[in-house]
Amino acid sequence: MEFIKNAVGRLVPTEINGRELKPFMGAHADQGGGEKYGGKVPAAAKFNNKLLDNLDAAIDACEIRDGMTISFHHHLRNGDFLINMVMEKLAQRGLKNLVLAPSALFPVHEKLVEYIADGVIANIEGSMNGPVGRACSQGKLKGAAVLRSHGGRYRAIQDGDLHIDVAFIAAPCADPHGNANGVNGKSACGPLGFALADSLWADKVVVVTDHLVPFPCHPWSIEGGNVDYVVQVESIGDAAQIVSGTTRITRSPTRLLIARYAALFVADSGIMSEPHFSFQAGAGGISLAFVKYMSDLMHEEKVTADFIRGGSTKFMVDMLRDGLTKFILDGQSFDLDGVRSLRDNPAHIETNPFVSYNYHTKGCFAQMVKVAVLGATEVDVNFNVNVNTHSDGWLLHGIGGFADAADARVTMITAPLVRNRLPIIVDEVTTVTTPGETVDVIVTERGIAINPQRDDLLQRMKGSNLPVKTIGELHDIAIDMTGIPQKPEFDERVVALIEYRDGTVIDVVRQLLQQD
Amino acid sequence: MEFIKNAVGRLVPTEINGRELKPFMGAHADQGGGEKYGGKVPAAAKFNNKLLDNLDAAIDACEIRDGMTISFHHHLRNGDFLINMVMEKLAQRGLKNLVLAPSALFPVHEKLVEYIADGVIANIEGSMNGPVGRACSQGKLKGAAVLRSHGGRYRAIQDGDLHIDVAFIAAPCADPHGNANGVNGKSACGPLGFALADSLWADKVVVVTDHLVPFPCHPWSIEGGNVDYVVQVESIGDAAQIVSGTTRITRSPTRLLIARYAALFVADSGIMSEPHFSFQAGAGGISLAFVKYMSDLMHEEKVTADFIRGGSTKFMVDMLRDGLTKFILDGQSFDLDGVRSLRDNPAHIETNPFVSYNYHTKGCFAQMVKVAVLGATEVDVNFNVNVNTHSDGWLLHGIGGFADAADARVTMITAPLVRNRLPIIVDEVTTVTTPGETVDVIVTERGIAINPQRDDLLQRMKGSNLPVKTIGELHDIAIDMTGIPQKPEFDERVVALIEYRDGTVIDVVRQLLQQD
Repeated sequence: MEFIKNAVGRLVPTEINGRELKPFMGAHADQGGGEKYGGKVPAAAKFNNKLLDNLDAAIDACEIRDGMTISFHHHLRNGDFLINMVMEKLAQRGLKNLVLAPSALFPVHEKLVEYIADGVIANIEGSMNGPVGRACSQGKLKGAAVLRSHGGRYRAIQDGDLHIDVAFIAAPCADPHGNANGVNGKSACGPLGFALADSLWADKVVVVTDHLVPFPCHPWSIEGGNVDYVVQVESIGDAAQIVSGTTRITRSPTRLLIARYAALFVADSGIMSEPHFSFQAGAGGISLAFVKYMSDLMHEEKVTADFIRGGSTKFMVDMLRDGLTKFILDGQSFDLDGVRSLRDNPAHIETNPFVSYNYHTKGCFAQMVKVAVLGATEVDVNFNVNVNTHSDGWLLHGIGGFADAADARVTMITAPLVRNRLPIIVDEVTTVTTPGETVDVIVTERGIAINPQRDDLLQRMKGSNLPVKTIGELHDIAIDMTGIPQKPEFDERVVALIEYRDGTVIDVVRQLLQQD
Repeated sequence: MEFIKNAVGRLVPTEINGRELKPFMGAHADQGGGEKYGGKVPAAAKFNNKLLDNLDAAIDACEIRDGMTISFHHHLRNGDFLINMVMEKLAQRGLKNLVLAPSALFPVHEKLVEYIADGVIANIEGSMNGPVGRACSQGKLKGAAVLRSHGGRYRAIQDGDLHIDVAFIAAPCADPHGNANGVNGKSACGPLGFALADSLWADKVVVVTDHLVPFPCHPWSIEGGNVDYVVQVESIGDAAQIVSGTTRITRSPTRLLIARYAALFVADSGIMSEPHFSFQAGAGGISLAFVKYMSDLMHEEKVTADFIRGGSTKFMVDMLRDGLTKFILDGQSFDLDGVRSLRDNPAHIETNPFVSYNYHTKGCFAQMVKVAVLGATEVDVNFNVNVNTHSDGWLLHGIGGFADAADARVTMITAPLVRNRLPIIVDEVTTVTTPGETVDVIVTERGIAINPQRDDLLQRMKGSNLPVKTIGELHDIAIDMTGIPQKPEFDERVVALIEYRDGTVIDVVRQLLQQD
């Protein structure tokens, strides 16, 4: 295997799984070019009755063979039943060497580790949160896994880098034509955008629902004109695990402090008060607290955002209700308030990775967001961020929308300086998920570091009382607390590629020597 | 030029404009295959500021050259300003041999006839209503025009048969990212679906608006991720001509009778009372009256349609309000009530030619409609329908959605038996727009003819008091009234192709010997 050093100094292979690879060249170096994958031309006359009796009938109809690529989405998160249901049937049929292309896997999918051991699954192109990621770190996959951001996955499917033979789409609501959405039914999850690319470009598309309604099912986040078959099942997921009843703000004083610093940074820098303010935040404990603090500050200063970007939560819904934002642009709803608001409020808008995150578009929403607040497992002194592996080397998380959202005007990382007696700010991240050139501010409970490339932000913060420090200072404080941590030991074998949003390889994950 | 006889017995060329042609083989013979056109891969980093000062800046940025294909949509109908504005600038720049690819042209675009004469426009792929169609019949275009149905145009762009270099999209409402809709602003027109394919596959896409709003403009019928440039202008159209203040039902007793017969046919055949009833009707005088009569019958029988398909009008909006239908699926709004309802009522849903009409999909809405009521310029004794030329041979109309909508379970043509002293039912239509195999019922004031292929409908109507006759009988009655009409005389030269929705050639239009 030949390796080449990329623009963040990582050695990445030039070819893997028989596919030629391009090294990461810089966050905005890719200028496009070439043609997208068109997809196969179907004929409407063949699609007068798509409703099949059960999953087996759909698997039969799709003529799944050894080695095919099968995809799923992760809007049902840890409540998903469909991946296990389908994979069990494929395993029972004796299929081998399948490539799984889920947008993400969760602990509920631990059973897949057995199918990997049995040779049913040869490789995974998708995010692996938890046990399947652990199996990947142990070198159990035959191929090298490919991790992509939400936007990067859409791009890969659009550009033909990731060809899907059969997509199974769990749909909380669908009609017999295959129109589907995630806002109605007992398994409502909010948006369905992670399945959009699959529906547009997979050879065969199967919509599986536990809430079949007469045509037309609207909104049609997934359009029936792209769907081959529709199957009704008893249940596609465990509602209690699909979305939280309510999301809760952290009670940790440290984390509350980090969130408050982040919100004050947005206010003190003057960004909050400029026209067309907008921000993005997720559903982690710090993020929720950040949203709450931002609400308070915006309320005091009578600021209305042009839009805020979810994952939506009750705290964002409250902002919309209170007139603190004109719109919520929502890629996934994290609690029931988010789902209900998306269903009922026209100013709460469903998005998908095409409009939000895809780099191979004529612009996407990520680059229009003023402030993105994101979490990380590690940040290094060059502001490179790791969200995939832990400092002990285990691959336990997907990229999510991280690399995409980091294209915001100001990207802020919120994290405690130390976690489980390990420093979060390190000399060199175990894995580079996103290059430091796109990361602007690190907010910890012990201080805030601004990327020296952002002289504008350094100037803006001169009058602020916030504890602005250099990243080196923060690193020193962390090391003082933890000592110099031991680095994990890796085998040579590359078990996963970290693809940047433009399709280049920004880093690799290697097999761990330690096996448990 | 070589000709071949197609499945409706018409001689069609095997090649034209340098493109190989396929003869029409039957309404559902095409089984798909091959790949769609993917479109070029752009890079988001190039699209941080799309807002240009004026149309000239956009034309410069698009680098328009001789021979390029330029497209427009026709949602502004006879109120459109944009086509004339852009074409005047292109003519002033001395550009030649452009191919115009509008979804349709109207009398307001008569000025284009001069650009055809001057060599600015070499050919037109699109519908030509009125004066430009007349110029086509006179042989003034250098190439052979191509007429496509709404669904056929989407298919042609999707499949790469029609490559668009630059699309100009008149947008009643847009944001600086290029997100656009037709429901807000002074030039509101309703849906924007006729521009969807252009936005997805044209090399360059320019959104031109007279109502620029901050990001995000929502609904985004056109997605900014597909848009290169945005231009704000004083006005994109004449509101009074874009949609009617109100649409009016015919007062002609003959036409009212035809509409009543059509509605009674739907009731007497039992179709109205079956589960999942739906129908489609347009905005012509007879169609409006048909909708009104259907409303009355449905109200009496307590029938609620699953959906009705517009072009939407006040009469459809009333049905939605009165609970006579669960949804309106709307491809274009014909009056202000239609526009307002689309904007405000979530059960009034915007559609586009992909979801509604495209044959190269995994099914579209057209084939789910129970009854489609459509007009025609001629019908022949084999139920072939002409909507393009008049009996005197002039090409004066586009196909609209005719060939697509005729895929409904029951396709009914409503027309007076005689118009301007010419029979509407003829031995052989001047031009075949749509094959008789898809046309089921002809409703005239003198009787109703059922396609003998539809034995089911003949059986269903046995108990009805409606004047069911054979098509031959209706033809004889017409000829008794008018005498045998003179046929127009044509030159050999093919001036336009009539493409069926699957991309095959169903007929040609030839140059008229008579020139005015």
